[in-house]
Amino acid sequence: MKEELNKEDVLRRLQELGTIIVTQIENGTFPKIPIPSRNVSNIIYDEKLKQYILGPQKVVRSAGNIRLIKALTQLIWTAWFSSRLLKDGKSFTLRELYYQSKNFPIIDFEEQKESDEIVTDLEALLGVPREEFGLTPKENSKIFGDIDIEYRVPVRFKGKIENLMTSPDGKAIGMSIATAKFLNCKAKMVIAIEKDGIFRRFIEEEAYEKFKAILIDTAGQAPRFARLLIRRLNQELKLPVYILTDADPWGVHIAGVIISGSANAAHIKGLVTPEAKWIGLWATDIKKYKLPTLPMKDRDLKRLEELIQDKRYSSDFWRNQLREFKELKRKAELESLSKHSLSFIVD
Amino acid sequence: MKEELNKEDVLRRLQELGTIIVTQIENGTFPKIPIPSRNVSNIIYDEKLKQYILGPQKVVRSAGNIRLIKALTQLIWTAWFSSRLLKDGKSFTLRELYYQSKNFPIIDFEEQKESDEIVTDLEALLGVPREEFGLTPKENSKIFGDIDIEYRVPVRFKGKIENLMTSPDGKAIGMSIATAKFLNCKAKMVIAIEKDGIFRRFIEEEAYEKFKAILIDTAGQAPRFARLLIRRLNQELKLPVYILTDADPWGVHIAGVIISGSANAAHIKGLVTPEAKWIGLWATDIKKYKLPTLPMKDRDLKRLEELIQDKRYSSDFWRNQLREFKELKRKAELESLSKHSLSFIVD
Repeated sequence: MKEELNKEDVLRRLQELGTIIVTQIENGTFPKIPIPSRNVSNIIYDEKLKQYILGPQKVVRSAGNIRLIKALTQLIWTAWFSSRLLKDGKSFTLRELYYQSKNFPIIDFEEQKESDEIVTDLEALLGVPREEFGLTPKENSKIFGDIDIEYRVPVRFKGKIENLMTSPDGKAIGMSIATAKFLNCKAKMVIAIEKDGIFRRFIEEEAYEKFKAILIDTAGQAPRFARLLIRRLNQELKLPVYILTDADPWGVHIAGVIISGSANAAHIKGLVTPEAKWIGLWATDIKKYKLPTLPMKDRDLKRLEELIQDKRYSSDFWRNQLREFKELKRKAELESLSKHSLSFIVD
Repeated sequence: MKEELNKEDVLRRLQELGTIIVTQIENGTFPKIPIPSRNVSNIIYDEKLKQYILGPQKVVRSAGNIRLIKALTQLIWTAWFSSRLLKDGKSFTLRELYYQSKNFPIIDFEEQKESDEIVTDLEALLGVPREEFGLTPKENSKIFGDIDIEYRVPVRFKGKIENLMTSPDGKAIGMSIATAKFLNCKAKMVIAIEKDGIFRRFIEEEAYEKFKAILIDTAGQAPRFARLLIRRLNQELKLPVYILTDADPWGVHIAGVIISGSANAAHIKGLVTPEAKWIGLWATDIKKYKLPTLPMKDRDLKRLEELIQDKRYSSDFWRNQLREFKELKRKAELESLSKHSLSFIVD
């Protein structure tokens, strides 16, 4: 593993790829790259390595063939972007990469499925997993922020004190953190974020310092421990809570559940934070920031109608946002802010 | 939130419940308890609290009615078990609670859905979320163990050193931990565990110390960062890796993917740990430990046939286990060891 995890080594492999292409152009030939075929017929089980590997079949991406030039261009762009991530010591989710590509009309990924395919080609070509060139997978519910806590459970940890800003991947929010005593808190607010990639972005861009914020990654609909912790931070430490979600009916509802609870937890009162504020992405942000949008699908529109009927969303503000969605019939994701720059979302 | 998180307060509420029942029996009446109804007609939106709450309707569980006595008994048992968890400073997942009940034939939960319902009744009755009486929800992929690591990313964390045994909920395995440099490691092995509840059990029972183990919670099929980290711990530190999964075709495959990779990552070599050992639950453990089992469903049997055809499982050992499953047509989960005791699984 060691060699694959070596940043310099991966950078060197990316540079070799660039050199091959530049050399071909300088020699006056159309650049082309042979890529290991990922066709089922080329997936073989290696008895010695004891794992599936790709066989010797190759597919060639060539600029000399009008049907293949686009895929080659996309591959080169993805390699270039990955080298930039590596040099900056940053990371992107596949979703963010897809949106970032919107800045380069010549790349023209129609859907994320296409950019995912190109990333897989690049993995095959370099022989290393995408994590090593800065493209991270989905992660899960966690916390990061400048607060000291004192554990109550499990027994062995009772009384132990820990700061929650030491692990840049975040600490998993389980029973021990959710029930811990709060000691020193230097943060001035809580930001609950729907998406892993954006949570990581806030850490990498040091937004926790800029906003003096405790960051909570809800990884979609906030799990109960996350909601419990958000409420406690709000009520016990009087920290304001801001919620950052996609601009779509699901994002609205993620905010709504943190603020007002869910119908299936109506029998308990300890999980809501009525004072929490949804700060976007709002429907009205879509126009304001000229965000790349996607059309709403039938299930989005159905969900929108349900929210319009829901008493929790009966204030003027919510009604206005829901009406805007209904007119637009389009949605936008947090990652769409990546269109502007690596760090736009926290600026 | 503060009051709900107070262990003594929750214990007091549980004791009050016990007192009501004991008093009724002493007075010569059949014990009965009114529980807030969770029927849709009783779920109302409270404008002031700004959340859904239960209305005034109650349902009565009474020992004087032969149809209701079972639910009352189950409720009292669940309350008793919860008070025990609280006093011991321990926690259980809903799945573990379901299996624990198998020690008490009089409780007789047929399916987990039933015990989940009773837990929800108890939440409604006490007015606090189940997390506060020790019943935890599902968590996600993480690590816990006595090893110091030095971060390489993000920039601000480069060179920072951290021990991975400080957070009893585990640390999320993201890019920073997966790519960190290993410094001092006092652990002698890695145990990869399929289930959150069992990962937590290993921490609460201090099994990490007994086995000198780094624990990794794969939370189902191991995510790629977890597989990358497992491989590095094995290859760079020469730590043996043991995999603990359910005794079913899915558990077999979780082990198989850690050991030999997945077909859709056949194009990269850096994610497998051929030396890792699957230590169970094996099909043969089902008889050996007299575990409570569930019948295999059609999808389990279909998956089993696929594994029998898969080259990765062609050694005598795997063939033998798969044959055993095929004969038994039954499966068992890790939590089924909870039948024996709170700590049986780590003894």
